[in-house]
Amino acid sequence: MNLENKLSSISKSAKSNIIRELLKVANDPGMISFGGGVPDPETFPREELAQIAKEVIEEEYKFTLQYGTTEGDNELKDAYKELLEKHEGIEGVQYDNMLVTVGSQEALYLIGLVLLDESSYCAVGKPVYLGAVGAFKQRFPKFLEIPLEDDGMNINILEERLTTLSKEGKIDKFKFVYVVPTFQNPAGVTMSLEKRKRLAELADKYDFLIVEDNPYGALRFEGSPIPSIYNLNPERTILLNTFSKILCPGFRIGIIIANENIIRKFSIIKQGVNLCTPTLTQRLAARYLQKHDRIEELKPTLELYRSKKDTMLEALENEFRNIQGVSWTRPEGGLFTWLTFPEEVDTLDMFEEAKKNKVLYVPGEAFYVNEVEKNHMRLSFCLPSHDEIREGVRRLKNVVEVYLNKKTI
Amino acid sequence: MNLENKLSSISKSAKSNIIRELLKVANDPGMISFGGGVPDPETFPREELAQIAKEVIEEEYKFTLQYGTTEGDNELKDAYKELLEKHEGIEGVQYDNMLVTVGSQEALYLIGLVLLDESSYCAVGKPVYLGAVGAFKQRFPKFLEIPLEDDGMNINILEERLTTLSKEGKIDKFKFVYVVPTFQNPAGVTMSLEKRKRLAELADKYDFLIVEDNPYGALRFEGSPIPSIYNLNPERTILLNTFSKILCPGFRIGIIIANENIIRKFSIIKQGVNLCTPTLTQRLAARYLQKHDRIEELKPTLELYRSKKDTMLEALENEFRNIQGVSWTRPEGGLFTWLTFPEEVDTLDMFEEAKKNKVLYVPGEAFYVNEVEKNHMRLSFCLPSHDEIREGVRRLKNVVEVYLNKKTI
Repeated sequence: MNLENKLSSISKSAKSNIIRELLKVANDPGMISFGGGVPDPETFPREELAQIAKEVIEEEYKFTLQYGTTEGDNELKDAYKELLEKHEGIEGVQYDNMLVTVGSQEALYLIGLVLLDESSYCAVGKPVYLGAVGAFKQRFPKFLEIPLEDDGMNINILEERLTTLSKEGKIDKFKFVYVVPTFQNPAGVTMSLEKRKRLAELADKYDFLIVEDNPYGALRFEGSPIPSIYNLNPERTILLNTFSKILCPGFRIGIIIANENIIRKFSIIKQGVNLCTPTLTQRLAARYLQKHDRIEELKPTLELYRSKKDTMLEALENEFRNIQGVSWTRPEGGLFTWLTFPEEVDTLDMFEEAKKNKVLYVPGEAFYVNEVEKNHMRLSFCLPSHDEIREGVRRLKNVVEVYLNKKTI
Repeated sequence: MNLENKLSSISKSAKSNIIRELLKVANDPGMISFGGGVPDPETFPREELAQIAKEVIEEEYKFTLQYGTTEGDNELKDAYKELLEKHEGIEGVQYDNMLVTVGSQEALYLIGLVLLDESSYCAVGKPVYLGAVGAFKQRFPKFLEIPLEDDGMNINILEERLTTLSKEGKIDKFKFVYVVPTFQNPAGVTMSLEKRKRLAELADKYDFLIVEDNPYGALRFEGSPIPSIYNLNPERTILLNTFSKILCPGFRIGIIIANENIIRKFSIIKQGVNLCTPTLTQRLAARYLQKHDRIEELKPTLELYRSKKDTMLEALENEFRNIQGVSWTRPEGGLFTWLTFPEEVDTLDMFEEAKKNKVLYVPGEAFYVNEVEKNHMRLSFCLPSHDEIREGVRRLKNVVEVYLNKKTI
């Protein structure tokens, strides 16, 4: 059978997630991996989750083992609403403003389904989280790639591009700007309040939506919190949250917060995608949040991440200060720092050398849509030990030197 | 903000699932509902699932609380493979032939994404499971609606339609035939072995795939099992299974079984849709299957369903034998029977009268794509008690009589 001529245009054009392919060697003996963005399983509150699981299956089996509503568990919504009020200063969110999804990835996917056609435009960071692009790309929209700076997306360039679209009479095809404003993936940088305000204003001026993806907001280990874009423009902002980084990824629970008309559209489409998010993991997360201030509990974990981040920045300083043209970002939270090398460095090309040297990173190329930059890499500091971080960065320096030498020859 | 001009073509055309809307009154006091297709929660093995949940979270938290692979838990695949061998006579299935999905609904959705474009054709039953159509419709394909008979889809008409497509030079746009061959939803009928063989042969002759959706196969309470279409043509058949009817729906676990090239395409697309199915519910189901022969355990439940089916058919006979032109199917398993009324009856139009009489069904109209028939209804016999079934059918007869009298006036 010739399968190729059975495939849809989506399937023909889709490529496997490059990170998943590259990091298959992450568990090889002796390997130090700065690759994945997965949390440390030792931070999961397993004893209590185990107890809660037993209880909610025994006592609430009519809910936890049965089909649920497409919109999601109201107990979870109540608990999450409280968390939003207490820790994010987001008030007034109702059931109709929330939809529970199978992780944030489903939320991103629904956004593509509900908002994008082939004729549509959307704006994303340059670099950008590749999971978002993977979801949006299945709709074949046109991407505006807006450079990222140390204080977030370059809003001047965004406005220039919007003005151009306006002049060309295409602004009604522009649907949304996608941002991870706090501790961006991959770059680790945070959008300033001033830029958030300007983005919120531009949304009104040019009549578009803002997708505010916030998986890392609760992982701030230094500096002061900045108000969410949702708070600045709740009517036009679709806020995405997930339990993957604050509780555990295995539950696959994300929450979309947006105005009720948008949520209603998402719910109708979600019926066709998977009917509902698993009821068991929703109720488990709800019970846990009812009993615990999870954000308070995370403090020791964040202290650990902060010290590992410091170790990594120190190691980068020690190893790379004498190599011209190397720089890196200084995250105040989240899981990543972003290295930039001189333009002749191609970090994907260099990856084989890194594997040989038993150190892994994610080549920057993975985080661009069309206008690819090859001289970056993403490093995650949350999983390796302090010693591994120091040793890993040493290996990395060696890899770069060997690579540059080979290039020169 | 004008949301309408932000929406994609998919979102503009999508409608909410009619069953979910109609059945919102199912829990009203005194209501007898033949509406939903949900299993009785008392049949879920809650005590043991509670214990297993505690164990797999405490002891296997590095798996059950963490991200999983897109392809799914190999332990679940092993356990399911054994079930397939023992109870379905399906041998030789490997990991690469299986993908774990968020319920069968996600499997149906992935089929649409991977196989269908706007220019594509697919064939479905008339009537057809509306969840499948809801998923496929998001891809805007053309549907061939093939009449259903008491022994399954009319294969002669299918072949006629394929021949016509061939003559028109469009057969290369024909992607698949979708069937629920065993205890079809909504009609409860089962495709004969002869028709299965003819369908499997046609797939080779006209080079298409067969989507064999099998949620109810394990719910046979009388008659003899018929080999699955997958066994007759494994290369071209995409077999969908779910744990929703044999274990519990709350886990949201489905399994696609197909040739490895197809599974690989599904996996790549699933990365963008939700990264992975929840690890916790996968491992829970795996452990349960390792310890229990679930199909054996279901026997008392099936005995109950059989007796309720008998009660329903008897009640239908008692109440409707004197009303000309009423008939119904005689299922050997599954959850549904399908009533046909004289053509002047519009069961959606009659629904308000039914609500007044405190009895609910699903209007047949929900189960057609374009060529709608209004004179059918789906009745589920699995949840109401024997007395409720008898009383409900009495009410139904009253509803029909009142409706027909009003029409005549």
